[in-house]
Amino acid sequence: MSADRQGDVSKEAKQESVLLRPLGTAAAPGQELVCVFGTGDMGRSLGLRLLQSGYAVVYGSRRPHSCGPLPQGAQATGHEEAARSAALVFICVHREHYDFLETLAPQLKKKVLVDVSNNLKKNLYPEANAEYLQRLIPGAHVVKAFNTLSAWALQNGPSDANRQVYLCGNSDEGKQAVAEVATKLGFTVLDKGSLSAARELEDFPLQLFPEWRMPLRVAVGLTASFFFYLLIRDIIYAYVDQGKDVSFRIMVSLANKVFPIVSLIMLSLCYVPGVIAAFLQLYRGTKYRRFPDWLDRWMLCRKQLGLVALAFAFLHVLYTLIIPIRYYVRFRLSASTISQIKENRTSVFDTTLAWRADSYYSMGILGFGLFLLLGITSLPSVSNALSWREFSFVQSKLGYLTVFFCTFHTYLYGWDRFLQPYGYKWYTPPAYLLSLVVPSLLIVLKLLLLLPCVNRSLMRIRQGWERNDAEDGSARVLLT
Amino acid sequence: MSADRQGDVSKEAKQESVLLRPLGTAAAPGQELVCVFGTGDMGRSLGLRLLQSGYAVVYGSRRPHSCGPLPQGAQATGHEEAARSAALVFICVHREHYDFLETLAPQLKKKVLVDVSNNLKKNLYPEANAEYLQRLIPGAHVVKAFNTLSAWALQNGPSDANRQVYLCGNSDEGKQAVAEVATKLGFTVLDKGSLSAARELEDFPLQLFPEWRMPLRVAVGLTASFFFYLLIRDIIYAYVDQGKDVSFRIMVSLANKVFPIVSLIMLSLCYVPGVIAAFLQLYRGTKYRRFPDWLDRWMLCRKQLGLVALAFAFLHVLYTLIIPIRYYVRFRLSASTISQIKENRTSVFDTTLAWRADSYYSMGILGFGLFLLLGITSLPSVSNALSWREFSFVQSKLGYLTVFFCTFHTYLYGWDRFLQPYGYKWYTPPAYLLSLVVPSLLIVLKLLLLLPCVNRSLMRIRQGWERNDAEDGSARVLLT
Amino acid sequence: MSADRQGDVSKEAKQESVLLRPLGTAAAPGQELVCVFGTGDMGRSLGLRLLQSGYAVVYGSRRPHSCGPLPQGAQATGHEEAARSAALVFICVHREHYDFLETLAPQLKKKVLVDVSNNLKKNLYPEANAEYLQRLIPGAHVVKAFNTLSAWALQNGPSDANRQVYLCGNSDEGKQAVAEVATKLGFTVLDKGSLSAARELEDFPLQLFPEWRMPLRVAVGLTASFFFYLLIRDIIYAYVDQGKDVSFRIMVSLANKVFPIVSLIMLSLCYVPGVIAAFLQLYRGTKYRRFPDWLDRWMLCRKQLGLVALAFAFLHVLYTLIIPIRYYVRFRLSASTISQIKENRTSVFDTTLAWRADSYYSMGILGFGLFLLLGITSLPSVSNALSWREFSFVQSKLGYLTVFFCTFHTYLYGWDRFLQPYGYKWYTPPAYLLSLVVPSLLIVLKLLLLLPCVNRSLMRIRQGWERNDAEDGSARVLLT
Repeated sequence: MSADRQGDVSKEAKQESVLLRPLGTAAAPGQELVCVFGTGDMGRSLGLRLLQSGYAVVYGSRRPHSCGPLPQGAQATGHEEAARSAALVFICVHREHYDFLETLAPQLKKKVLVDVSNNLKKNLYPEANAEYLQRLIPGAHVVKAFNTLSAWALQNGPSDANRQVYLCGNSDEGKQAVAEVATKLGFTVLDKGSLSAARELEDFPLQLFPEWRMPLRVAVGLTASFFFYLLIRDIIYAYVDQGKDVSFRIMVSLANKVFPIVSLIMLSLCYVPGVIAAFLQLYRGTKYRRFPDWLDRWMLCRKQLGLVALAFAFLHVLYTLIIPIRYYVRFRLSASTISQIKENRTSVFDTTLAWRADSYYSMGILGFGLFLLLGITSLPSVSNALSWREFSFVQSKLGYLTVFFCTFHTYLYGWDRFLQPYGYKWYTPPAYLLSLVVPSLLIVLKLLLLLPCVNRSLMRIRQGWERNDAEDGSARVLLT
Repeated sequence: MSADRQGDVSKEAKQESVLLRPLGTAAAPGQELVCVFGTGDMGRSLGLRLLQSGYAVVYGSRRPHSCGPLPQGAQATGHEEAARSAALVFICVHREHYDFLETLAPQLKKKVLVDVSNNLKKNLYPEANAEYLQRLIPGAHVVKAFNTLSAWALQNGPSDANRQVYLCGNSDEGKQAVAEVATKLGFTVLDKGSLSAARELEDFPLQLFPEWRMPLRVAVGLTASFFFYLLIRDIIYAYVDQGKDVSFRIMVSLANKVFPIVSLIMLSLCYVPGVIAAFLQLYRGTKYRRFPDWLDRWMLCRKQLGLVALAFAFLHVLYTLIIPIRYYVRFRLSASTISQIKENRTSVFDTTLAWRADSYYSMGILGFGLFLLLGITSLPSVSNALSWREFSFVQSKLGYLTVFFCTFHTYLYGWDRFLQPYGYKWYTPPAYLLSLVVPSLLIVLKLLLLLPCVNRSLMRIRQGWERNDAEDGSARVLLT
Repeated sequence: MSADRQGDVSKEAKQESVLLRPLGTAAAPGQELVCVFGTGDMGRSLGLRLLQSGYAVVYGSRRPHSCGPLPQGAQATGHEEAARSAALVFICVHREHYDFLETLAPQLKKKVLVDVSNNLKKNLYPEANAEYLQRLIPGAHVVKAFNTLSAWALQNGPSDANRQVYLCGNSDEGKQAVAEVATKLGFTVLDKGSLSAARELEDFPLQLFPEWRMPLRVAVGLTASFFFYLLIRDIIYAYVDQGKDVSFRIMVSLANKVFPIVSLIMLSLCYVPGVIAAFLQLYRGTKYRRFPDWLDRWMLCRKQLGLVALAFAFLHVLYTLIIPIRYYVRFRLSASTISQIKENRTSVFDTTLAWRADSYYSMGILGFGLFLLLGITSLPSVSNALSWREFSFVQSKLGYLTVFFCTFHTYLYGWDRFLQPYGYKWYTPPAYLLSLVVPSLLIVLKLLLLLPCVNRSLMRIRQGWERNDAEDGSARVLLT
């Protein structure tokens, strides 16, 4: 399960030792020759893999005779000669040094140049490396590829997150040629279209869960604030008011209040933007106008919001289920039994309470089950297998059902608690009440949208209808 | 996680604003020109996306000058002219209006026509829209594509369930051309073969979990009947017989009886057809003869049956785990303790009971664990990574092990209960006994099939051997 | 969910009956003709499917007139004639009988030969069947394909583990032609490169979880040894020492000690090799040297080690959560309460104990949650969607966090228990202490590697730097 890179190194070594034998026939006529510019780690790793896959490799280098250790079986020559020798040239050079390539323009004419370069950070340069390369050597077929793989994968071939080679370029035959090499190297190829996609490909290896940032920030923020809110109300208050030290409650009781609250709020937060958008469209009378940025960004991370909420719900479930094995709970229970006997009280069974408690649990379980279902359908391989009608059915219909169950679950938890004064320690409302604000609001607004009249006009707008006449409409499109 | 469509609209708007700049160079020489027939929502959405991806778009329209708002950068002309101008024509017109295309046959000759149309319901027409189109314009290369995407995805590009463009057609160059456009638009392409697959593609967007219908109906049916059965036995009986109101048991106790029962029955239901089929093949002495329809339909939804059963098992687990935190249970426990003390009874520890209870739980847990494993291996991406030998090992070997564990779990639950008269309220057998019928039968039959003699001849039949002589055999194939 | 094969047969039958109608027009001009050598089950199944998909099929056979039942619509002729008739020939013959093909070399020249053969066991022959075939008929374009599908899938088309057709070959047009057929038959095609990949493809259908063998052996070994260790300490000791029969504890209490122990050890076992490799690289001062075999093998099954560990952790969780509903536990609890009252003891609440118990549970839950996350990201479709930077972040950073949580969880469980003499029955240390050895060691070593100085030089080595001078370096590569 670990992706430590050394594993691959050794694998490389192994394949090497396995595959070096065929390389005895390196000069075989059938064997294809490819050229690699650059003898850094990138160039060497790639060359090694190419040799292993049965290619002949020529390195192009400034100092062909002192360019450090090369994978065995590879030759090294000057750039011109290397460029001349092969139809396919891998550019394993940092963008900073591309300029020297300009001088090779004549030799590289009609050649396929594979730009495998990456930058250290995004937006370092006005244009993508590959586009810059194409501009330097207009006569060549520049293809962006292999840059989304780690140097390790270039040495060792496919492994977990390094199975696919994304490529893009303006020349189809160029892409075709690179695709064949990638396949021979054991990767699966994904064509991303024209060279204009190069920027996207160059940013890919730099990204670290970009679309998860915002949801995680929200989660951390909510968790922290509710944690302190509850710390004050439950722990500190008890200490100040009755001098009791119940600090141990932090570990489970308090956590198990924070998790469900955050989960419920975040779950509803991924349906709120949809409702807002709907009202915006109704107000504007058209779907052909862009939304404010904040709304866009919000919408684009709904899936992540939901999955983080699911994680919190999962923790809530586990924290709830271990309650009965807690020392504290067992102690309290037996204590109450003992006191009952000592004081010879006889407690009577309260059917309403039983009803309420049980339905409270049922709602929670059903809500969590549905929530899990939403999570499963958002797995790439599952959502790909669904028709969009099925997907939107699951995500919106079942999604709202989940919101409803979970909200109802919380209402049942609260029951009439909000009436009791002791709940308002230091004049602060109980936390669960705060958690109910967003979902309750959401449900109300959604119900409004479902009113036949409202729903009808919304549908018409979504089918392309515009309240104003055509000219004006197109004009508006022009304005955006 | 939500797939509400507005999100995409806004995304569209955003991309638009981002991408409109390059469109300044709409007349750029390198830029490809495509034609779109029809200026409805479909046509506009597609055109918008095409423009964003750097294509020049010409709309073909009856009334080029009054055809409503068009995405900016697009021209509109008459059909003939538009058809002449581009090599690729998107037909975004309802099938009802295809006839006018016949008149354009000469202009559309040798052109690639992309049929993106869908119907409102299945089997509305004798032949697929795309095939109809091909018949109207035999000289054109008709390709069915993009119809499986929502209009939203056509505007906005890939999103969860809208990543793949399925296409089919009789002309390879035609498909090639469309595939390139789809890739440039950011989708991944899946070739579904010849135009005869068009019907399938046109039905795809209409489907709403077709293969889940039957399993869900079975689940609902079983749940309802067992619910009422238990309602009568557990709640109503208690009320009539002892005047006790135990209605609160509905929420958890009763549910937690219904779920496992339905789960066990449905789990075994996905192995029953296999056994039936085996016996049929043994009886017929050949595998080259079709099964009765009901058996076929049953077999094709086994996976879904299993997954629904897993969902019920999951609920059963959660409902079981919350038992100890239920008010009712806690009350009963402390009550019993108290009564013990009052009456000064000393209960002795029953080792047999402990053995039984613990193995009952163990079996349940192991069964559920295996069941979950089956569920995971049926995820598309996982089952694709397995060789069929591995897959069938997991699904049949481990599958039957799961059935065995769960059945044994139920037997341990029942233990000697079926002997006690009080179990037969109003002369009805306890529900768990009913749930054991199918799985027990299944296990017995499976064991029969595993008898060496039976198994051997079954294997031979499955390897293509036929009991009767060849001619007769082929004849039979002819008959099917 | 079941993959019993009969299901497919019947499906086949159905499709057949559905699809035979078009075959009325079998002689249609547009229809492509393919040839199948061999009339065994493989040949018949494939032919059936080809006919269903609209191909005309000619069987090549020794005895064209008595070659058993053929799918209807197919003709049978002699080999020469059949070979002449079609451009594409499926070789559905056992490798043993390939030799006769040599005589057909002239007729098969320039033809595409599809080798669908499999062997009964690995490494039966020096070279892959397909390569052998190519050697026999150098003039033909040999393509290895369809062999990874079950005969059932060849009859019935895609189903769970039979969706993808892997193919390889030296001739691109050959592969192209086969890919088209595969697509028409409803499969998705995966090009695996040159014919040298044939061996891999031929081994694929034979494999039964090869990379899972070692992890499962480890799991079984650990489980067995710890089971007996605990059996002696907990059950037998109690019987010998106090003559108490606590055998019932085997089912849950004992199992719930074995599972977490095995899980923790195996979890750390998938990070140990990475650490060893790092130290090896530091010692050698280069990454360009292969590791000992045992280390390689260990590294290549880390993912599986982790997933097995996760399964054990999952069982541990369930076994823990059912504790409070166990008869034994309930009995003990009420017994203690009763005794308390009888002896009129008043137990005082121990805050430290509460703290400890609760943090113990918290650590466990958080550890399990993270562990589950690791499991999810190792699903093919998920890891494919991650950039390798993201993947390695999750798997190594979060992975070590998981190890830490789980180890801490175990330490909290032990607390000061290791000090108490009664823990060392028969001078054996408590099992949990044994389980802590590996993870503790791992964490210490990892911390060593994180020391700035150590870490820096390791990073340099991983970026391709070598301690010794270039010549020597390349020399070493040569030596490997």
